Amino acid sequence: MSDQPSTPLPAAGAELLGLLGCGQVFGFHTLADAAARSPFEQGVELALMSTDHLEGYRRTRQRIADAGLDADAVIAAHEPALQAFHERTSPADEFEALLKCYVGMGIAADFVREMAATLDDGTSAFVADVLSRPDTEPVAVPRLRQVLAADPVEAGRLALWGRRLMGEAMSQAMRVATDRPDLVQLMVGQDDLEGFNALVSRMTSQHSHRMRSIGLYP
Amino acid sequence: MSDQPSTPLPAAGAELLGLLGCGQVFGFHTLADAAARSPFEQGVELALMSTDHLEGYRRTRQRIADAGLDADAVIAAHEPALQAFHERTSPADEFEALLKCYVGMGIAADFVREMAATLDDGTSAFVADVLSRPDTEPVAVPRLRQVLAADPVEAGRLALWGRRLMGEAMSQAMRVATDRPDLVQLMVGQDDLEGFNALVSRMTSQHSHRMRSIGLYP
Repeated sequence: MSDQPSTPLPAAGAELLGLLGCGQVFGFHTLADAAARSPFEQGVELALMSTDHLEGYRRTRQRIADAGLDADAVIAAHEPALQAFHERTSPADEFEALLKCYVGMGIAADFVREMAATLDDGTSAFVADVLSRPDTEPVAVPRLRQVLAADPVEAGRLALWGRRLMGEAMSQAMRVATDRPDLVQLMVGQDDLEGFNALVSRMTSQHSHRMRSIGLYP
Repeated sequence: MSDQPSTPLPAAGAELLGLLGCGQVFGFHTLADAAARSPFEQGVELALMSTDHLEGYRRTRQRIADAGLDADAVIAAHEPALQAFHERTSPADEFEALLKCYVGMGIAADFVREMAATLDDGTSAFVADVLSRPDTEPVAVPRLRQVLAADPVEAGRLALWGRRLMGEAMSQAMRVATDRPDLVQLMVGQDDLEGFNALVSRMTSQHSHRMRSIGLYP
């Protein structure tokens, strides 16, 4: 296709890298929003973390371009779905924002990582590397535990919020997969309903682990 | 004071660097907020610019620490005043957010740059360098001109918003200067009311220039 030497990338890989790149931009927005709602020092910590996502976006965009594709178009194709999730999980305060960073972005990363595992080793390792940046856990978990310990009534509200994040993320993931045949192939390609159930089960288990680490029951 | 070799920094310089460092963090928040309200591609551009501010924060914090001072405390001292400005100029939409980036942050940078000019050459050059990062002008100006050309009614609303940004910034600058004797000394130290009037006149002129570049009358 292209005159310059390019790294070949199968359609499914391009789809997934597009989702990853777009997700990095929304990851930036999610962290920056939590930063803006935080006390000053915590806001600085989260702001610094948000820049890792832009670096992940830049690297992913470059990798798609290296395959001779129109990286901006490949990435922007995922914007409507991610924007919909983002708007449906707009946090009302600092704590909802922190939970969105830790739990919501955690689910999204799990989903992309799971699908990447079925790709060629190079792409799969690239995705894992982009997603391996410092986690928000060291900021979000102690802060949320402290809040919940001081005000048990908050626990009910935030448990609901965590469930909503999980529900919206799964519903959006299904929609992304349904609208994009190449991604569906990644999810159920190697197998079938059983493989898919296993994937959902692993994601649910990781979600439960995160919720429990804050002292919430999923 | 400190055992390790440190770069001496007079009290006024420390005050100004604290204001600069804190301002960089709020600059990040302002750009990230505008990015979140922007169409996808423009959002990415503004997000990438926001990271320059965190780099400016990091460098400023290091410079204060190199002088043997508690950099976090020196920076955090300015948080209440900047937070107050930030809250009083919370944008309602993308266009108010862009004007805040271009006009509001422009005024703030002018203010800090003016005061830095009265400091020793090293500190003054450092401040100018931190403030010399890419301007939001290439993003904000074409976008705002396009909006105003398509909808002249917006011009009235945004002209008012620009005046409000200027008014709040000046009132906040006065409060900062009044609450902090070392900064007052920077502003009027070399002279008196005349020097101060000249400063205000220069800032007003730069503000008018920015407003006119969008097609607004200040």
